[in-house]
Amino acid sequence: MTHIYFNPWLERYKQPFGAVQEGTMVKIWLSVPEQQNTKVQLIVRKEGSSVGQKIFMMEPASEDRFHFQSIMDQGWGLYFYYFKVIHESEGYETIQYYGFNGQGGEGKIYGSEREVVPYQLTCYQKPEIAPKWYRNAVFYQIFPDRFANGNPDKRINQPKKNSFIYATEGDEPFYIKDQNGEIARWDFFGGNFKGIEEKIPYLQELGITALYLNPIFEASSNHRYDTNDYFMVDSVLGTEEDFRSLIAALHTAGIAVVLDGVFSHVGKNSRYFNISGFYGEDTGAARDPQSEYRDWFTFNHYPDDYKSWWGVADLPEVRKENPSYQEFIYGDLDSVLSKWTSMGVDGWRLDVADELTDDFIAGIRKNLLSYQEKILIGEVWEDASNKIAYDTRRKYVFGDHLQGVMNYPLRQQILDLLNQSRSLQDICEEMIRYQENYPADFYYNQLNNIGTHDTERILTMLDGSLEALDQAWGLMFMMPGIPCVYYGDEAGLTGGKDPDNRKFFPLRSIDQRLFKNCQKWIERRKKYNVLKHGHFFPFYSQTQQIFGIIRYTEEAYVIYALNLSDQEQCLNVGELSSPRAYKGDYDVLERILDDEVLAPKGSLFMSESN
Amino acid sequence: MTHIYFNPWLERYKQPFGAVQEGTMVKIWLSVPEQQNTKVQLIVRKEGSSVGQKIFMMEPASEDRFHFQSIMDQGWGLYFYYFKVIHESEGYETIQYYGFNGQGGEGKIYGSEREVVPYQLTCYQKPEIAPKWYRNAVFYQIFPDRFANGNPDKRINQPKKNSFIYATEGDEPFYIKDQNGEIARWDFFGGNFKGIEEKIPYLQELGITALYLNPIFEASSNHRYDTNDYFMVDSVLGTEEDFRSLIAALHTAGIAVVLDGVFSHVGKNSRYFNISGFYGEDTGAARDPQSEYRDWFTFNHYPDDYKSWWGVADLPEVRKENPSYQEFIYGDLDSVLSKWTSMGVDGWRLDVADELTDDFIAGIRKNLLSYQEKILIGEVWEDASNKIAYDTRRKYVFGDHLQGVMNYPLRQQILDLLNQSRSLQDICEEMIRYQENYPADFYYNQLNNIGTHDTERILTMLDGSLEALDQAWGLMFMMPGIPCVYYGDEAGLTGGKDPDNRKFFPLRSIDQRLFKNCQKWIERRKKYNVLKHGHFFPFYSQTQQIFGIIRYTEEAYVIYALNLSDQEQCLNVGELSSPRAYKGDYDVLERILDDEVLAPKGSLFMSESN
Repeated sequence: MTHIYFNPWLERYKQPFGAVQEGTMVKIWLSVPEQQNTKVQLIVRKEGSSVGQKIFMMEPASEDRFHFQSIMDQGWGLYFYYFKVIHESEGYETIQYYGFNGQGGEGKIYGSEREVVPYQLTCYQKPEIAPKWYRNAVFYQIFPDRFANGNPDKRINQPKKNSFIYATEGDEPFYIKDQNGEIARWDFFGGNFKGIEEKIPYLQELGITALYLNPIFEASSNHRYDTNDYFMVDSVLGTEEDFRSLIAALHTAGIAVVLDGVFSHVGKNSRYFNISGFYGEDTGAARDPQSEYRDWFTFNHYPDDYKSWWGVADLPEVRKENPSYQEFIYGDLDSVLSKWTSMGVDGWRLDVADELTDDFIAGIRKNLLSYQEKILIGEVWEDASNKIAYDTRRKYVFGDHLQGVMNYPLRQQILDLLNQSRSLQDICEEMIRYQENYPADFYYNQLNNIGTHDTERILTMLDGSLEALDQAWGLMFMMPGIPCVYYGDEAGLTGGKDPDNRKFFPLRSIDQRLFKNCQKWIERRKKYNVLKHGHFFPFYSQTQQIFGIIRYTEEAYVIYALNLSDQEQCLNVGELSSPRAYKGDYDVLERILDDEVLAPKGSLFMSESN
Repeated sequence: MTHIYFNPWLERYKQPFGAVQEGTMVKIWLSVPEQQNTKVQLIVRKEGSSVGQKIFMMEPASEDRFHFQSIMDQGWGLYFYYFKVIHESEGYETIQYYGFNGQGGEGKIYGSEREVVPYQLTCYQKPEIAPKWYRNAVFYQIFPDRFANGNPDKRINQPKKNSFIYATEGDEPFYIKDQNGEIARWDFFGGNFKGIEEKIPYLQELGITALYLNPIFEASSNHRYDTNDYFMVDSVLGTEEDFRSLIAALHTAGIAVVLDGVFSHVGKNSRYFNISGFYGEDTGAARDPQSEYRDWFTFNHYPDDYKSWWGVADLPEVRKENPSYQEFIYGDLDSVLSKWTSMGVDGWRLDVADELTDDFIAGIRKNLLSYQEKILIGEVWEDASNKIAYDTRRKYVFGDHLQGVMNYPLRQQILDLLNQSRSLQDICEEMIRYQENYPADFYYNQLNNIGTHDTERILTMLDGSLEALDQAWGLMFMMPGIPCVYYGDEAGLTGGKDPDNRKFFPLRSIDQRLFKNCQKWIERRKKYNVLKHGHFFPFYSQTQQIFGIIRYTEEAYVIYALNLSDQEQCLNVGELSSPRAYKGDYDVLERILDDEVLAPKGSLFMSESN
């Protein structure tokens, strides 16, 4: 006897898979054990709609299935749905509800309507087609203070008064704090633009085609998330001329450059806030009550008590709804965005996107649309399709806002996989849930990483195993999205959280095995177009401790399988499963594995073009 | 009616003044109200003598005075004496004791022998005649990390791994500590030998003729009191060749150089202790139980619990009684002292002399005697004539040990005077007590200062008053002893205690008024030989708020008077007094002030050669 059953990850129950554009026809089937005397309702609520929930009767289809189909005609946004199964027998009704189980795929039965958790259906306004250069890119993230010093004598450009310079490039990063645990002085290695420019041949040898640079504008700290002047590059990094030269040289070398846009807050010593008078005695919001910047900030008590990012007094928060600030950041004329984008910057990564309003993000996007081929991605740590920040559901994924996000969840999935700290099924399901919730293009526009300036070094998380790091790269490069290598991961840098994850690039002691492994994956990414555009199908065998990913098109496929057990094993379709099943997926798996394929311990990479 | 009275500071009561060489005839008089039926005993105890105390009967001299004279024949050392006055009347005796009042000069009557505090008489073995260059010198103390960087590009020589470099020379010094308040990283400005050499013309313009350098040997810290290798100069300061070049250039310029000898303890990371393996895995006392250095140290528990200077684990203490260490430091052949002294170093300042044994100091002195014209002074903060350290009376002043000490008490006397925080009488008496207790040559060999690397900047202590600093210099330059200017005092450096008193020398913003004032006093010191050798006679008027010093010989005098009141006043002998009165003192004062001399507010300097 069949139970009530629904699973949007199976072709049998929902078509098409995942998010849809508005106007798309969506078909849904529900299995029920018995059709006679049974009515099935599909209950749908479009978030933000004035209509409230709609109740649709599902039609009997085959012997045990009910069917419903509808064009998404309530506009873009999130649709939430669940099932109500009413069985009439001997004069009274039994009602069961069926909804989301918390993870995705197969759902669960709820006894009451109050408790039922609905499935999400993402409906977007239009596909976010990213520029080709972006979709084909291999990124490299540089924390500019820590990559390379291009001065022949290793002199530091214009060191900031009352800051400290590391004595040697091999020093371990260290926060210089006062008795209260606050930063007392900022520490610099003194990496600069010339250093990056000088290392272009290195980046080319590795195979990099795009850089994501942590902030570069004038600031007090070494991380520069405390912007002091949005119209100046930080003088420790070099001159604006140095930066122009860097962009030109990068472009000549076929390398794009994406900047970190930090627009939620400024530095307390910025020209806009100027609490300590660095920019003059009587200027800036905190020193001049008549300042043109006064309205950018929220003073609880002027001038000493003000709203700041997470209560960090160093970072006064800006009111993003302020029109003068909006004009300043992304106005058509003389805005921050215009200056740097027209200088040749290829895109922006929005820092703490959750702290920006949707309108603000849309404004930035609109500005960028006036240029060719720019990209806008955001820092969002969780599922961007349904993120609620400050009680507001965010519009990141629906079109005209972000084009993609940094894929932070991927790192944890990969770590859990390689450290075998979570079941393969669970990891696989989480991957598919993201794929389901994100519009396909948005999903393919994610900037994948296995480590950034905000996380422990991947090599450290993998207990220093070079083989495991090779596998971590393999997984990242196999995933839809654009791979991004955090500077130094390919050279053997280790370390825990900030500041240890921000050591200076070890130019003289690059681990050549790591470098070659990283280079190998970049070469594969470039060689196999299917890695950039192909369908994504993860699979696993919990008993065999095998996890794999296939990327495929009609013409070609690549398959990457990790055999996490301590013996070689046969890969065959019968042993493998996936939470998702659309016909193409299994077809290609069957075709590849029509003979048993021997998977050695460790990893297996195979490819074929038809 | 006269009381019992004695005062060794008056010619009428004791001749000669102050300390005497052994074999000298000393005469003492005591006033008593009535001579009849009175016996007076002088009770003398020579410290360290097996004889115990001696009781001498004093002879009636004039109508109210008793007299005693004796050749100092119990050898050098400290003699302590007091008076016992026995008056017999109507069949029974009244006994009074007369001794030291705690400050000096006039004594006081004690009712019981148990309570009486004796006077001190210092008896030395031989006069410590310092080399002429030293007695005539004007010193300048340099904290080498903070004076000048002689590299054209301001590069730091060989920065130490995991240390921090100040971003700009104008930065405020800052200790980089961990959560436990321990130094986590050392901070360097990067001053070096070449920098000092380059600034010789500046030193010459100021008038300097000798340098006292804080430690220069290989160490971990910026102050270098944690020696790592006594046979190497610190590579941050430059090469040994740089140091030789510096000595040669200084000598050519007529500038002597005295080093800081830090022999009480070493650095925990020294080649001798080597706790962290910096000098190799299996070498040094803390890593090799068979190490030749093992016996230098005292391990409570090997190797982690060891005796260290004031419990500072960074600084393992050395057993100065260890013959191999003695040989190492001051042996005839290949010793630390021999290496640097024969290289041309003109003398040594012994750090924490109290922590060294007298024998150790005598050994150092003996080593230096094999060279011409070297000087040995010690860091002793209190009265060196009677200093007890670790329950032992120290032999600093008696000959064949130190030739002089750094005069730290002077600074407080000058500050109290200028800040009017102590009575003029009290200050004047304290000055005379030191003069009394020290052998004359030792007294004239003191290295005077109004500030060092261990004290707040003098300008800060004087509330930034340039006039007051000029007066402070005036007092220091008027005093017997060799004036030593702490680098940067002449340039306007300010700051509280360590580390603020160790700012980098402000080459580009030297306060010209201060510089010229300092230069003026150095010129006077050079022009008036009487300032180097003349008798010292301080005087004051508490009511007029006047304090003055005369230095005189038979041929010449200089007088410096501070009128601390807010109006001009007449200087005349009748208004002025001094705790000390030997005939020559008042004669010269009377001769100078035979007409009333008008003292303006502030200071007055007059001189005359006969």
